[in-house]
Amino acid sequence: MRPQNDTLLRALLREPTEYTPIWLMRQAGRYMPEYNATRKRAGSFLGLAKSPAYATEVTLQPVDRFKLDAAILFSDILTVPDAMGLGLYFVDGEGPKFERPVRTEADVARLACPDPNVELKYVTDTVRQVRTALANRIPLIGFSGSPFTLACYMIEGGGSSDFRLIKTMLYSRPDLLHRLLDVNARAVAAYLNAQIEAGAQAVMVFDTWGGILADGAYQEFSLAYMRKVIAQMKREHDGDRIPSIVFTKGGGLWLEEIADLGCDGVGLDWTVNLTRARARIGDRCSLQGNLDPMVLFAGANEIEAAATRVLNAFGPLHDQHGKVGGHVFNLGHGISQFTPPESVQTLVEVVHSQSRMQRV
Amino acid sequence: MRPQNDTLLRALLREPTEYTPIWLMRQAGRYMPEYNATRKRAGSFLGLAKSPAYATEVTLQPVDRFKLDAAILFSDILTVPDAMGLGLYFVDGEGPKFERPVRTEADVARLACPDPNVELKYVTDTVRQVRTALANRIPLIGFSGSPFTLACYMIEGGGSSDFRLIKTMLYSRPDLLHRLLDVNARAVAAYLNAQIEAGAQAVMVFDTWGGILADGAYQEFSLAYMRKVIAQMKREHDGDRIPSIVFTKGGGLWLEEIADLGCDGVGLDWTVNLTRARARIGDRCSLQGNLDPMVLFAGANEIEAAATRVLNAFGPLHDQHGKVGGHVFNLGHGISQFTPPESVQTLVEVVHSQSRMQRV
Repeated sequence: MRPQNDTLLRALLREPTEYTPIWLMRQAGRYMPEYNATRKRAGSFLGLAKSPAYATEVTLQPVDRFKLDAAILFSDILTVPDAMGLGLYFVDGEGPKFERPVRTEADVARLACPDPNVELKYVTDTVRQVRTALANRIPLIGFSGSPFTLACYMIEGGGSSDFRLIKTMLYSRPDLLHRLLDVNARAVAAYLNAQIEAGAQAVMVFDTWGGILADGAYQEFSLAYMRKVIAQMKREHDGDRIPSIVFTKGGGLWLEEIADLGCDGVGLDWTVNLTRARARIGDRCSLQGNLDPMVLFAGANEIEAAATRVLNAFGPLHDQHGKVGGHVFNLGHGISQFTPPESVQTLVEVVHSQSRMQRV
Repeated sequence: MRPQNDTLLRALLREPTEYTPIWLMRQAGRYMPEYNATRKRAGSFLGLAKSPAYATEVTLQPVDRFKLDAAILFSDILTVPDAMGLGLYFVDGEGPKFERPVRTEADVARLACPDPNVELKYVTDTVRQVRTALANRIPLIGFSGSPFTLACYMIEGGGSSDFRLIKTMLYSRPDLLHRLLDVNARAVAAYLNAQIEAGAQAVMVFDTWGGILADGAYQEFSLAYMRKVIAQMKREHDGDRIPSIVFTKGGGLWLEEIADLGCDGVGLDWTVNLTRARARIGDRCSLQGNLDPMVLFAGANEIEAAATRVLNAFGPLHDQHGKVGGHVFNLGHGISQFTPPESVQTLVEVVHSQSRMQRV
């Protein structure tokens, strides 16, 4: 059953909407004092992410505070490789790390697809608890990292500035990387399907690092495995269509190929011209994005002007052929931890009011 | 007078060449043992960069070791803001920093264009010494950071992962950033002209950080100021045409606009499809790039295959209309400090031999 406010789902499926729906990548996070309070009680980031009670609490915080049109599951992007036994841990100020990174042929051979209802039960439990708490007011988005993005962390053992280890494997042992990505694609598809079965009403694949790949390598090592994920994914649950969104940060040159994956929505970062993106792929997919998160450090007038420019760049609901276009307002990347919460308030109000006026 | 080997200049000016010329961004650097030896003698990176004798020595090292088709001036990208009095310094493992970053209206008001023949005399001296040492065997490329890229460091005070300070100024005080960029554009043009007068036979503008800007902001805050630089630049010296190259890393979506700057060559990172780039702008500019530097961590066979793919992606010297295309082989970004020097040897040989075969 569709939620009371199903504007997000309608926009993703390119059905008419009364206004442009908005949610923000990383909307539950450190810029919110209430998040920091919960995080303190949880003791650690992983303690927070792995506890369905705490994760539910922080998932709801931004949708309680702002009139957002969707909740997104609070979780870490690396739950899947953690469930594969790589030993996820966090060092303050350094981002995620793995105790047992994947470096050798034997490491790759050992990898197996986790059972999301066993090793990742804390995630599906969170999905169920969030759905109960939301009482179907707005939809809940589930998510996963893309097979390639997970592989980056699995091989590098953490973040990287040059991705030297994964690219060395890519260029010297492509067979090995393909084997790893094949496990990842199956694991990601199973993970997203488990989230859908637990109640996620839309899903998003975050290809955070696909944009570091060379043209050619992107298609072979990231896009192909997202295609496998989309192909294995449930498209319906309990009679409802489950829209999917694919976002490759830095993937603006490859939008046509992403739109051909079979996903419903394509995420865009702020380097992409939204008018041109709609002309390129707007007949096949809805578009999500693409305000520079740093706009939220300016004053209310500047936020209003910049958000209006994004809405105008997408243009009217109907294109020149009378076809409905789908636009989900979002940032072009996750919100900064230093963002003043009042800026988010301003943004949500502006997007709603300006886009309603556009429909008149 | 053109150098004995003027293949690079001819490729940049889209004149016929017998083979595809190659040089590598950051070709004089830490992957070479002889560079590290000189650096040790110089005592520090700035000691090396600011000494014409040492800088000349390291500029020549890669062209002595490999059959490269150009030398590029060894210098730091931040010499211009250093000459403005910001106090450049280096902390080991942390990259460049400024003692006096530009943060306030008063800071911007204080900025003045340095005289390159006074405050940057160590650079023009290096250019002259390199030219003497090269004895016109191959051309010498001069360079500068772009006005926007310099502004990033000047405002952030060093490297940044989110460019929050410069983007906050951009979105809340665009007038201030424009004033700063105007000074930078004049300073960069004067700096490049001084290098040309001292003997640089081609020049390149490195817009390393233009790609972090939103569409719209890129045009207003980076592209517009590179246009000013190109407009103020000497196009000829001593009867020779001085070709210019503009490279915005992550600028693949804006190639048409870059090609319209009036530069001769456009640098491409590895995310760009070279065939499509040639179709988009190859009738107006030569193209430089675009091998992923990480290919150099694979074996000789893989390097050969990847380099051949780049050459084939550019395609034959003459396009389908019989017009000569210009391709300068390069990496899509600076060479990694961990690169095995033998890989560079392999790459240079492959590019030369394969492209000669393409011409037959």
